[in-house]
Amino acid sequence: MTDTLVISLDAMGGDSAPQIVVEGAALARERHPDVRFLLYGDETKIAPLLDQHPLLAAVTTVHHTDSLIRNEDKPSTALRSGRDSSMRLAIVEVRDGHAAAVVSAGNTGALMAMAKFVLKTLPGIARPAIAGIIPTARAETAMLDLGANIQCDAENLVQFAVMGEVFARTVLGLERPIIGLLNIGVEDMKGVEAVREAAAILRETRLPIVFKGFIEGNDITAGTVDVVVTDGFTGNVALKTAEGTASMYSGFLKEAFRSSWMSKLGYLFARRSMQNLRTRFDPRRYNGAMLLGLNGIVVKSHGGTDEFGFANAIGVAVDMANHGFIEKMTDDFNSLQAEVNSPKEATG
Amino acid sequence: MTDTLVISLDAMGGDSAPQIVVEGAALARERHPDVRFLLYGDETKIAPLLDQHPLLAAVTTVHHTDSLIRNEDKPSTALRSGRDSSMRLAIVEVRDGHAAAVVSAGNTGALMAMAKFVLKTLPGIARPAIAGIIPTARAETAMLDLGANIQCDAENLVQFAVMGEVFARTVLGLERPIIGLLNIGVEDMKGVEAVREAAAILRETRLPIVFKGFIEGNDITAGTVDVVVTDGFTGNVALKTAEGTASMYSGFLKEAFRSSWMSKLGYLFARRSMQNLRTRFDPRRYNGAMLLGLNGIVVKSHGGTDEFGFANAIGVAVDMANHGFIEKMTDDFNSLQAEVNSPKEATG
Repeated sequence: MTDTLVISLDAMGGDSAPQIVVEGAALARERHPDVRFLLYGDETKIAPLLDQHPLLAAVTTVHHTDSLIRNEDKPSTALRSGRDSSMRLAIVEVRDGHAAAVVSAGNTGALMAMAKFVLKTLPGIARPAIAGIIPTARAETAMLDLGANIQCDAENLVQFAVMGEVFARTVLGLERPIIGLLNIGVEDMKGVEAVREAAAILRETRLPIVFKGFIEGNDITAGTVDVVVTDGFTGNVALKTAEGTASMYSGFLKEAFRSSWMSKLGYLFARRSMQNLRTRFDPRRYNGAMLLGLNGIVVKSHGGTDEFGFANAIGVAVDMANHGFIEKMTDDFNSLQAEVNSPKEATG
Repeated sequence: MTDTLVISLDAMGGDSAPQIVVEGAALARERHPDVRFLLYGDETKIAPLLDQHPLLAAVTTVHHTDSLIRNEDKPSTALRSGRDSSMRLAIVEVRDGHAAAVVSAGNTGALMAMAKFVLKTLPGIARPAIAGIIPTARAETAMLDLGANIQCDAENLVQFAVMGEVFARTVLGLERPIIGLLNIGVEDMKGVEAVREAAAILRETRLPIVFKGFIEGNDITAGTVDVVVTDGFTGNVALKTAEGTASMYSGFLKEAFRSSWMSKLGYLFARRSMQNLRTRFDPRRYNGAMLLGLNGIVVKSHGGTDEFGFANAIGVAVDMANHGFIEKMTDDFNSLQAEVNSPKEATG
């Protein structure tokens, strides 16, 4: 990749914007020296921050705007009155071909609504979804939807499966990613209708998808599959439950090490291993949720992250752009559409 | 409690039945010396096991039956052909007033169907639910439904809230348990319709319920509330996701301690604290899911548990019986019914 990649940033999204955005971009520049940045936001706040990062400033163009989307804004409000917002203008750069991807740590609902309105969905995709990467006992697993679609029919779930498959193949670099549908049991008759119907379609499809069938909640972190497909309500609850459980466990671990002088001493010896363990679960490492199904790469950073987390979100966007994510997604959905439109040949 | 409590056991339910059932009862007898047991199952297998526990044998009556419910039996099959099964006969003892509660480690779907058919639901309850206890950063939280009802309307969720409240008050011993509805955000407009409607009803109710409002997945293990209310699909996924995450974390912790001689040495010093930590998360401690809403106490043990786990499930049944769970539940549902039937008085 010798071509310069341009990433567009909503400098005003997130709890500590624009500081974490500028500092995150400075870190990302070190890791990806070929990337250039377009920053949208309040120049009076951005300029002094950029002054501290001359190497970043050299590859960055700042576009001033006073308008921004607030965390409490409803998606409809954002769409109506956010025309000049830093978020929308950053997305427009992707639509207009000036940037390969956009990253924002702002309001998720507004970002999804705005990105859908500006970029449109890829042909054949009814609803975009939010995907994330989760650490597992084996490696990493992608999960979608994480909250964009709280009710899903079988067709939505099948589309999520295809989107997740392309994502795992291109960004996670897996040759034949294994897809699982989240359910409350592995038997055919288990679960809600949409899930059972989606499984039936995925079992029959001629698309080259490796479909494992149903998986259960404990399979997510066990790493039983590479892509977990579920509706946005269940996915959001499962993700946050996993995060909450890991955080409870690490709190108890800290407490255990502090509970006696013997265990304090034990910690001194085991410190390096424990630090590695903490790094393994560091939520900043997994920062950067992908809005999949849009005609453009959009990455959502956690609003409360710091510069390390934001730099990782930029890294996700760079990976997706470098791997030609949108082109591969388009190809796969063309095949899916062709299959749906042509009656299946009689077999056997 | 000087009266003798009788607990009825399905001796043939569970992966290692009847062994774990008999040995679990022997352990439970030590903890609850006033309890007597009725055992249903294959006497040729039960008798030699009981011979090894003469103190248990002295307080146990064995009723022989050849028939049993298999794990793979559908609830409808179990209902149709399980009339003489150990599971059904054990439940019948509760209906007939010969036992205060029944415990089974058998097929969950069959147990729920059979218990509902034999015991019926309490007046005012449309659907029974499965409740469990989860360790949290603060203490313990009850969660329901864990899988009995995969789709729920607002009324079901409100009834689960009332059932959970009674459970937390009587069995967990909390004076004013706090109830939360699981959702994907805390704002009023978030989530599916049934959840939003249920919240509206719980906010308005004249029942003396402390309703926190919406909670998110991470709140479950944070212990933000004492009772987590959700549909059986989401609850099942959340519970298993939490279990899976804890198990992944403890696997990584073990690995970290083994990763160098320094950390191995550290483990030696911290061993006692680490053992306490393991005990805190021991799933056997939380074994025993409650089938709530039935006209009788029914406790479901995990099918794969051992005698310690099964003894804990018996302990849950003993607690519920000793605390007059069914009577308190009946009272509360009478109040709820009265409220539903009488139009709310105009206020303010």
